[in-house]
Amino acid sequence: MWIPDSFANQPLGANSASAPRIGNGFGPPRQTRTLDVVVSRGGTVESRHRVHAAVVSADGVLVDAARDPELSVWWRSCAKPFQVMPLLRSGGFDAFGWGIEELALACASHGGEPEHVAVAARMLERLGLEEGDLACGPHEPLASRGARLARESGQRPTRLHNNCSGKHSAMLARAVHLGASTAGYERPVHVVQRDCLRAVSEWTGVAPDAIPVGMDGCGVSVFALPLANMAWSYARLVQAAAEGDVPSRRVVSAMTSHPFLVGGTDRFDTILMEACGGNVLCKIGAEGVHTFAIVDRGLGIALKVEDGSPRAQYPAVLGLLAAYDALPHPLPDALREHAQRAVRNTRGEPVGVVRVGHADVGDMLERSP
Amino acid sequence: MWIPDSFANQPLGANSASAPRIGNGFGPPRQTRTLDVVVSRGGTVESRHRVHAAVVSADGVLVDAARDPELSVWWRSCAKPFQVMPLLRSGGFDAFGWGIEELALACASHGGEPEHVAVAARMLERLGLEEGDLACGPHEPLASRGARLARESGQRPTRLHNNCSGKHSAMLARAVHLGASTAGYERPVHVVQRDCLRAVSEWTGVAPDAIPVGMDGCGVSVFALPLANMAWSYARLVQAAAEGDVPSRRVVSAMTSHPFLVGGTDRFDTILMEACGGNVLCKIGAEGVHTFAIVDRGLGIALKVEDGSPRAQYPAVLGLLAAYDALPHPLPDALREHAQRAVRNTRGEPVGVVRVGHADVGDMLERSP
Repeated sequence: MWIPDSFANQPLGANSASAPRIGNGFGPPRQTRTLDVVVSRGGTVESRHRVHAAVVSADGVLVDAARDPELSVWWRSCAKPFQVMPLLRSGGFDAFGWGIEELALACASHGGEPEHVAVAARMLERLGLEEGDLACGPHEPLASRGARLARESGQRPTRLHNNCSGKHSAMLARAVHLGASTAGYERPVHVVQRDCLRAVSEWTGVAPDAIPVGMDGCGVSVFALPLANMAWSYARLVQAAAEGDVPSRRVVSAMTSHPFLVGGTDRFDTILMEACGGNVLCKIGAEGVHTFAIVDRGLGIALKVEDGSPRAQYPAVLGLLAAYDALPHPLPDALREHAQRAVRNTRGEPVGVVRVGHADVGDMLERSP
Repeated sequence: MWIPDSFANQPLGANSASAPRIGNGFGPPRQTRTLDVVVSRGGTVESRHRVHAAVVSADGVLVDAARDPELSVWWRSCAKPFQVMPLLRSGGFDAFGWGIEELALACASHGGEPEHVAVAARMLERLGLEEGDLACGPHEPLASRGARLARESGQRPTRLHNNCSGKHSAMLARAVHLGASTAGYERPVHVVQRDCLRAVSEWTGVAPDAIPVGMDGCGVSVFALPLANMAWSYARLVQAAAEGDVPSRRVVSAMTSHPFLVGGTDRFDTILMEACGGNVLCKIGAEGVHTFAIVDRGLGIALKVEDGSPRAQYPAVLGLLAAYDALPHPLPDALREHAQRAVRNTRGEPVGVVRVGHADVGDMLERSP
């Protein structure tokens, strides 16, 4: 059993005062706001989720913040658009005849629905590899529809159902294209993971040796970064896409034009990107992390729910998008339900709500036509 | 759509500085500790859950605290042992020929397994009432076994599967025994709910008009109380039981001798009470609330996870029990898993842990033989 050190005096996150960075950090934000999400019942706050956030422009200006915008936490799945970059830039992606659907799945935390599994299977087939070559383990599909369909067909989840199977297939492709061993591609010392670290470093502006590397839920490397650097990377990604960088444009286009593959049925990122018609690029991460970009404003945003709860990250993401007028009018019902979810008793009567606590964000969502 | 007030500046909880109380509050605690629960990955804190707690003796001394021991929050299901008191004391419980299983279910947040449903059905039958008389709506059984068995038998959950159906059956019994209308028994103005408020007031030492009343998840009244008063009530309950008060002894005995009915398969309270052999009385509440008592120490304890997350309340409860040497040696595996749950990747490899962050509590659980 792994025995951890005492965390009593250890702050949240992986911040190290001595960690060198490219540049000098971001300085104070131009403005700040409160993004904490509250759960109310009977007019009082029953539970509170603390939310940290950073809003950064493509040229690296920290324009907005909530709590600690330079909090450094594990980036989890939000790194996926950059983890596929080495394969894309090297021509490896096209060498295997993969297309836009494969690219969307490589950046996905998919719902394990038949459509997702089919694309992942196709990716492996083109590599001449199989499910057993994936280093990620099986898990229950993240989408309810995926879980239901698997159960109804009597199928046990396979490694293809793992929400990261697209990312892993792309990592296998990188190994194959490099002529490197596919065994152990998930280990931090393998060239595939080292390339991912370099790509993440390049886009986030943090030196590779200043990026803590750990193990993600799916077995490959996970990176710790300040929220502001996460946000900056997404702003730079959409700016590069707009300015004609082909790999960037392909990644942004694949994700925003195939939101179902990136998430799935009833998945937040899917609902959001479908609603925003290409103007919002959005990627969820585990433990309350989310990174997204508003294309026409050239802004990248990253947030972390301190306690890791997903129910708080959805209102927080939507609250920030509302603050920057990036949500469609009228707001689709599916998004409205995520913006301020009614707490209902077992007879369906509303008794409270989950929403951003601060008036100028929470109320904005309420007043959306 | 219910529109709430802005909660930006509203503190957590239902504290009102002007609310009168019986007595003068509890004064400063004799000692304090840190109970925050952390989720670690790669040696750093990835997420943190803030935990508030109060430890109170039967004579009302606040012996121990974490963060704000007088934080006032909705008590949720932890009030159940007192909500059944009016029915017990009045002889109504016995008038219907109910026994110890019915009493355990009346105090339960049960798992909706066949055993629970059968007792609830029996309770209604003895009243000459039926499922439709229950004011609580149906929901998916809280125990995985309950959900699975219902699904496999093709059965849609009924109101009997509602985790509060025992409590509601007891409330119906109270109405019948009083000769009051059973319709609307769930409404705050009904004598059944007013009696529950009086019982809660009596045991917690807070004047009825100082107890905020809201609507619980199951449709009946829910009460807001300071953690210290919640803790005090459980200390007084086990002391009264030990001193021979018959209704108190029946409640404590029913819950501790029938832990499966109080929770169910793999439910925390059940596992804990089974392991502690009558020395711990424990009742979970929604949104991260928990109230429990250590019988041989005459201590009552209440805690609230600020963000409402269940995953944090289990290590916090066990951490406090360990601090008061109330856990069995050796610690059963099922409890050890709740005390510090390994975070595993999808290949089952441990990559982190969820545990109380402070060494003197968290480590104590680790070193348990």
